Formats: sequence, structure tokens, C-alpha cells
Amino acid sequence: MKVMVIGATGTIGSAVARELAQRHEVITVGSRSGQHQVNIEDFAQVKRLFAQSGNLDAVVVAAGALHVGPLSQLTPEHFHVGLKGKLMGQVNVAMAAQQYLNDGGSITLTSGIDTDHPIRGAVAASTANAGVQGFVRAAAIELPRGLRINAVSPTVMQESLHLFGDLFTGFEPIAASRAALAYARSVDGAQTGQVYKAW
Amino acid sequence: MKVMVIGATGTIGSAVARELAQRHEVITVGSRSGQHQVNIEDFAQVKRLFAQSGNLDAVVVAAGALHVGPLSQLTPEHFHVGLKGKLMGQVNVAMAAQQYLNDGGSITLTSGIDTDHPIRGAVAASTANAGVQGFVRAAAIELPRGLRINAVSPTVMQESLHLFGDLFTGFEPIAASRAALAYARSVDGAQTGQVYKAW
Repeated sequence: MKVMVIGATGTIGSAVARELAQRHEVITVGSRSGQHQVNIEDFAQVKRLFAQSGNLDAVVVAAGALHVGPLSQLTPEHFHVGLKGKLMGQVNVAMAAQQYLNDGGSITLTSGIDTDHPIRGAVAASTANAGVQGFVRAAAIELPRGLRINAVSPTVMQESLHLFGDLFTGFEPIAASRAALAYARSVDGAQTGQVYKAW
Repeated sequence: MKVMVIGATGTIGSAVARELAQRHEVITVGSRSGQHQVNIEDFAQVKRLFAQSGNLDAVVVAAGALHVGPLSQLTPEHFHVGLKGKLMGQVNVAMAAQQYLNDGGSITLTSGIDTDHPIRGAVAASTANAGVQGFVRAAAIELPRGLRINAVSPTVMQESLHLFGDLFTGFEPIAASRAALAYARSVDGAQTGQVYKAW
């Protein structure tokens, strides 16, 4: 299969690219690195990326901005960071993919463990991540041509503990290579409308 | 208790107002009717409403715009209808309420059954409704002063079948008076971070 990985130079995305490259041709995409660059918040750019790439069997997204901060200090603008980034950025990819993926192709998006297990300071993030899961469950029943869509909901990565460890006290971190298996389960599997918990 | 019901002239909101008025003082708010008017998409208006109302023990929202239409025809703008309306409209109310409600007060928002049971044409709606649930679960652990927050996830109302019946074929409609009980369970109860399924 030919698989596009968006966010391919991030902690999770690079592990997903390595996992998938064992069996598939992987096209790496980043906001500033990778074989192609895209700002997923710009639907026109996303559509252009798919139009140029052609002949894809799967797309994985491990990208999207989120705001972290205490509820008492959140403004609507803080929520918009995640709604524009993590939520609509990934929705943009899925909406373009439904036109351009080969028949029977798959879309795999990323949510987060905070949706199921709330943590302090993650209200705006949980709101966006929950939206991603709602989108995936609903889009699955309407996608044409045998296209599938799933989300992976990862816990904190061992490789990111130095960045996010304080948020996730008491959560068991996993290796990005283990999270990557959940993405492979979506890409190489046959289910749709699922949220695979990577924790 | 003194309870503000936003969307109080809608099918569900009017039933909620009737249910709560048996035990509480109810202030009705609508976009164009009720004792006060507010556009919940405008955070400044929402804050002004709370500042003027003062001394509230609870707020219920049964309001918020959604777009309904097939996945294949959705644009980012269609998603924004629900993200601005049903999601951020209700988030705006909760964010203002955390400042203005009396200690121990409660916030009750509205999501929808399509989040758990996807239906054709409701992708953009499910995305926004799922966001509401993610927000409620996460906000519950950070609200100060004993404030509580829950969501009610209603199925289609008997009173709305003539409008939405075609979307909900095979779903069992309930009377708005029965959905109102779930809102009362949130307002008069003691739980927080819950999603009460009204179906």
C-alpha cells in the first residue's frame, strides 16, 4: 500500500512511519519537514496535497495544535486553537481523503487519552479530542467506496515525558513504537468507526 | 434555587422550564424570546447576561445551532456552524457560569444521541455534540467552589418528529417532559462530569 503519514516527523508520527515502512510505501508529510509540507488547518492546501500525491491507499494523521491551560483562565480563543488545529485540521484531511483515496482505503486520525481520563489543564484539548472521536464514529457510516476511518487515542509517550510528564502524573507512559501498532491495526486491519486506545 | 434556562422556548427547553418551575425560580432566556435574550455564540453577551442576572444557582442550556447534511457535501463552514453554535455557544455559557454561579451551583448542557448512535447526515452535528461531552467530562474536575457540570444527551422528541423524524428512523422518540427529567436530575442531583442519556 501507499500510505501518507501527516505529522511524520513528530514523536508518534515518526514511529508510525517506521512501523508502516516495513510493509508499505510511506510518504512523509510535516508542517515544515518531510517529503511534503502542509498546514492542515488550510483546507485548500490539504486538497492540493492529495491531488498532487494521487493513488494513495491510506492516510494517517498524528498532528494538530492544542492549547493546555487551567479552565479558570481559558478564553474562547484558547478553545479555537484545538478546534482549528487538532479537530478541523484532521477533519480537513479526512474530507479531502474521501475524494482522493483509492477504493477501500483508510483514514486514521489521532485523539488522546484525556478524552476518557480527564487531566487538569486539558479542558480545551479534551474538547477537541472528543470532537475527533465523534467525527470518526459518524463519518464511518457515510464514507463511500469501502473507505474506512478510525482514531487512535494515545496516552503520553515515554519519548515525550520530558515535555508533558507533569500533566500526566500517574499515567503509564508507552513507547511510541507501541502506539504505532494501534495505527498499523487501523491501516492494515478491516474495522471502521473505531477508537483504538493506545495505553 | 434560582435557575436560568437558555433555549427556554424550544421544545426541550420549555419542558425543562416547566419541570424545574415546580420547585425552583426559573429565568427564561432565548435568542429572540424569553425574559432575557442572548446570542450564546457571543461570549461578551453571555458574560453580560450573567453579570446582570446575579445570584444564580444553576444554568441549563438547551440551545445551539447544528448543520445537518451528507458527509460528501460538507465543507469546513458546515462544521463551523455546530462548533460555533452547539459547542462553543454552550462552552461560552459554562465559562461565564464558573465566574457568576453561587457556590455549589450547577451547569447542564445538551449533546445528542447521534454521538453514541451515528445517523446519516449528522457528521457535523456528532462532531460538535461529542465535543460538548468531552468538555463536560474535563471541566468537571477543574470547576471551583463546588460547581458541578453535566450534559444531557437526548434522542429525538415526540414533539419534533415532524421536523426530524426522517433522520431518526428506527429511533424511539420520547416526550420532552421525559427528557426534562434528565435535566432535573442534573440540577437537583449531586453528580458532576456525567452525560445523562435521555432515551
